[in-house]
Amino acid sequence: MITLGANQYGKAEVRLVHVRRAADRHEIRDLNVSVTLAGDMAATHLTGDNAAVLPTDSQKNTVYAFAREHGVGAPEEFAMRLARHFVDAGPTTHRARVGIEEYAWDRIPVTGHSFVRGGREVRTARVTRSAAGTHVVSGVRDMTVLKTTGSEFWGFAKDEYTTLPETRDRVLATTVHAEWRHRAGRVADWDASYAGVRGALLDAFAGTHSLSLQQTLYAMGSRVLTAYGEQICEIRLSLPNKHHIAVDLAPFGLDNPNEVFYAADRPYGLIEGTVRHDDAAPAEDAW
Amino acid sequence: MITLGANQYGKAEVRLVHVRRAADRHEIRDLNVSVTLAGDMAATHLTGDNAAVLPTDSQKNTVYAFAREHGVGAPEEFAMRLARHFVDAGPTTHRARVGIEEYAWDRIPVTGHSFVRGGREVRTARVTRSAAGTHVVSGVRDMTVLKTTGSEFWGFAKDEYTTLPETRDRVLATTVHAEWRHRAGRVADWDASYAGVRGALLDAFAGTHSLSLQQTLYAMGSRVLTAYGEQICEIRLSLPNKHHIAVDLAPFGLDNPNEVFYAADRPYGLIEGTVRHDDAAPAEDAW
Amino acid sequence: MITLGANQYGKAEVRLVHVRRAADRHEIRDLNVSVTLAGDMAATHLTGDNAAVLPTDSQKNTVYAFAREHGVGAPEEFAMRLARHFVDAGPTTHRARVGIEEYAWDRIPVTGHSFVRGGREVRTARVTRSAAGTHVVSGVRDMTVLKTTGSEFWGFAKDEYTTLPETRDRVLATTVHAEWRHRAGRVADWDASYAGVRGALLDAFAGTHSLSLQQTLYAMGSRVLTAYGEQICEIRLSLPNKHHIAVDLAPFGLDNPNEVFYAADRPYGLIEGTVRHDDAAPAEDAW
Amino acid sequence: MITLGANQYGKAEVRLVHVRRAADRHEIRDLNVSVTLAGDMAATHLTGDNAAVLPTDSQKNTVYAFAREHGVGAPEEFAMRLARHFVDAGPTTHRARVGIEEYAWDRIPVTGHSFVRGGREVRTARVTRSAAGTHVVSGVRDMTVLKTTGSEFWGFAKDEYTTLPETRDRVLATTVHAEWRHRAGRVADWDASYAGVRGALLDAFAGTHSLSLQQTLYAMGSRVLTAYGEQICEIRLSLPNKHHIAVDLAPFGLDNPNEVFYAADRPYGLIEGTVRHDDAAPAEDAW
Repeated sequence: MITLGANQYGKAEVRLVHVRRAADRHEIRDLNVSVTLAGDMAATHLTGDNAAVLPTDSQKNTVYAFAREHGVGAPEEFAMRLARHFVDAGPTTHRARVGIEEYAWDRIPVTGHSFVRGGREVRTARVTRSAAGTHVVSGVRDMTVLKTTGSEFWGFAKDEYTTLPETRDRVLATTVHAEWRHRAGRVADWDASYAGVRGALLDAFAGTHSLSLQQTLYAMGSRVLTAYGEQICEIRLSLPNKHHIAVDLAPFGLDNPNEVFYAADRPYGLIEGTVRHDDAAPAEDAW
Repeated sequence: MITLGANQYGKAEVRLVHVRRAADRHEIRDLNVSVTLAGDMAATHLTGDNAAVLPTDSQKNTVYAFAREHGVGAPEEFAMRLARHFVDAGPTTHRARVGIEEYAWDRIPVTGHSFVRGGREVRTARVTRSAAGTHVVSGVRDMTVLKTTGSEFWGFAKDEYTTLPETRDRVLATTVHAEWRHRAGRVADWDASYAGVRGALLDAFAGTHSLSLQQTLYAMGSRVLTAYGEQICEIRLSLPNKHHIAVDLAPFGLDNPNEVFYAADRPYGLIEGTVRHDDAAPAEDAW
Repeated sequence: MITLGANQYGKAEVRLVHVRRAADRHEIRDLNVSVTLAGDMAATHLTGDNAAVLPTDSQKNTVYAFAREHGVGAPEEFAMRLARHFVDAGPTTHRARVGIEEYAWDRIPVTGHSFVRGGREVRTARVTRSAAGTHVVSGVRDMTVLKTTGSEFWGFAKDEYTTLPETRDRVLATTVHAEWRHRAGRVADWDASYAGVRGALLDAFAGTHSLSLQQTLYAMGSRVLTAYGEQICEIRLSLPNKHHIAVDLAPFGLDNPNEVFYAADRPYGLIEGTVRHDDAAPAEDAW
Repeated sequence: MITLGANQYGKAEVRLVHVRRAADRHEIRDLNVSVTLAGDMAATHLTGDNAAVLPTDSQKNTVYAFAREHGVGAPEEFAMRLARHFVDAGPTTHRARVGIEEYAWDRIPVTGHSFVRGGREVRTARVTRSAAGTHVVSGVRDMTVLKTTGSEFWGFAKDEYTTLPETRDRVLATTVHAEWRHRAGRVADWDASYAGVRGALLDAFAGTHSLSLQQTLYAMGSRVLTAYGEQICEIRLSLPNKHHIAVDLAPFGLDNPNEVFYAADRPYGLIEGTVRHDDAAPAEDAW
């Protein structure tokens, strides 16, 4: 018999810019908010009876109205407030997930109300609320890092399709996509927490003499859990290996002492892993 | 204590174009192949000992060599062949997943060896092999469809943030992302199977008088399972609601009888759901 | 002294979907319309006096209102109607340019009002109107074509940085971006004209035994001008050479008789050229 | 008669990362280099005789070899060196244009050889060399700026399609794409020159009370020419008006004192203009 399985719905990519206007100095938050609701939605799927369906347009309106009613603050706080609302609002929503991307802006010094988009990195927050509780996951993506030395790759398995030479010195570059799960109720200042974790990721990348990108991944994850283990119980990292290939200049009578590189687009290695405290209860629903 | 959790690695986006050269008529397959391996990889993460790591470069080489040694054929077949190789090749790989995107080309009639890229749709295949067996998931993405009538949305839940008017006639548009899981050993001709499922999805979209996009989603999924239930046990669909908003032309003294629409980019609704046969064993590992 | 030079302004990327509703069969046009106006705009630049500035919001409204008032039809016709309006509307606009992208949809056979996005190609139109007259330029972009044989490249210049081997058989692939300028008043059916030129471009690509992509470019351009010289006086082509590199499989004991290719992203060759009738008056303003 | 018109060819998007290795501190330059050559290329177009064609592959090799032979330095310098080489190398190349994009990296403080991609902005350089001389154009793109106040728009022309209300306070946001042409031989330190112009653009954007985006454009351009008129004779700006629309919260019983905005994607206004010194000789070939 054919049946309906897992399902969810919501409004994706609600673009919100919020301005907090102090006398001489404005603050802005630039967010992309996505709401996902799940509950007993069999009727709309099977018969088109929409009595349990809160329009995604209403979800969008809620994002904008909440920004005015309650302000925005850190993306984790705004997401928690929205998720609570959607679950508490009615019996048909069993689980709400609110995902937020935040884009950074730097001040232009001349005035208190002019800004230039900073950094390429995107800060993320993901809050999942259901009867089982609330999970908060913070993250960063599109943070591209590169080391010009301090990276080796040798001693690997070889099969009949292996031609890669071993190397004791290579460029290592990756675009960090990381998300970390918070223990309940431990973070007071989400902006400070984000800045701290971001710094720990950068320090571990830079400070680790790397024998493999996997080793660097584990070093980055364990650095965060060591420094912020009171708050954070698990971190997941996805690290594309952005290959920088030393160009063979011998045909032109030139050597290349790791100075001239071709930055390749595709293919790329992709290293993914989780680092966690062993006291952390699994929580697949959080992600 | 800090520990290593789930992890995997591989080579992503190996771009392969394969030409089969018959006398007067060439055949091409244009693929983007991604390999992901998992196994006992603690050593490389914890100490940088790479003895169990097959370089992602070797994985890339394997893709190209296999194309020559065995030909390519349907993406599901090529993915199965590669996944089997990686799992069987050594004891350190416990699970291999091969994901393939295929891009369509149409013949230019003049000759037997000239082609023009067809369609915007991408055909996908995803094969997962481990000791527990082999899963084959086929799919399509970026297949954008639109109905100019035959879609309603009313009778929905209303809260204090609801302003959306009910409608008995709207444009319905979505970009289909669907993946379907095959029962083991049932498909003989993967290309024919793909064409059949694609056709069923289009027919169900077009032929369903829609009271909600959820209803259309379920109609599309159940149409596939009804027609191909011998082969396919589960289908997952992700359908963004690409809003087409009738422009208010009253300020210019004009009516707008559902004729002039603004095609919005963001935000968009996002409807996701699974339709399955109730005899299908769950297989999260397949996805 | 610092002065204001050339300037223009307008509304870009107005997304319009127009539905023509016959009893059983609907027709759609899916357009992206950009309007650019130029005139005596010194005041707004120098003092912020906007008396001569027609808001870009009004330009957007005009696009939607015209779709209802006059219908849409071929993109060239719609662009001409809009350009005429903007120039004739007031003395401050000396030149209007309307650029349109059209996206193709195919019918889903089940009903008369369901569609699936077809092709990856974008049809373009560009109309420029000023006191000097009206220019109409039609075009196509993102039309990717590939030949598996019938392409050579040898006998080229060699300098101290040349390592490329000569070849008598290679894959030739490019993404056609072409625009052609019409003689005034010659085309009656713009949709038929577009289909004809598109076909001529494909035929010439496929039918030309190529010694260089430049030769193919000229063959494509001259084919169009030969077949449609009554209507078209000039064509400009931009052809990226999408390199398909035969993979060296010798390390694996395999030959590669032009069967297995790596499709590279970057860098790419870029070949650009104009083919024209020598009786065509130059018209830089048309582009 | 059908003839060949203007034409050019070259290698686009050569990705080069160059490392300068001092003892404790490495410097990197991350570039995307495109070469375009023009000359007497009739033969290859008309007959496929490639004797005058320097393969684009050789052009790519030259980029990498020059990075090793001469170092890289500022993108303007690297582009000048390459352009000179291509014109001087042989009689068949009459004009060489080298375009460079540079991506910014910030140091990670821990070590002297670790970096994180900074900013979203792209620095550009474009050098054109022919018998007529050498033009150097520097630029920036993707520099997104926003003011939360200090922007008005009123007193504009109104036609029958105008519905936009006048405003005395709006958010003004744009993504700056600017290119400026240098007088010959005036700049000694290209990196300092770029930093200065970038700062002037930001200062003028922030410091100008704006009555129109056109006025802001002129203020930005004239600020640069005022401060750097000894070096720079012309600047071209393209400024999309990234609309931020105050959300109407009245349906929810809320006011919105310019605090909650929807950041729209499309359509957008597009304001383009040139500011120049009147002593600057026109030089269309430079762009």
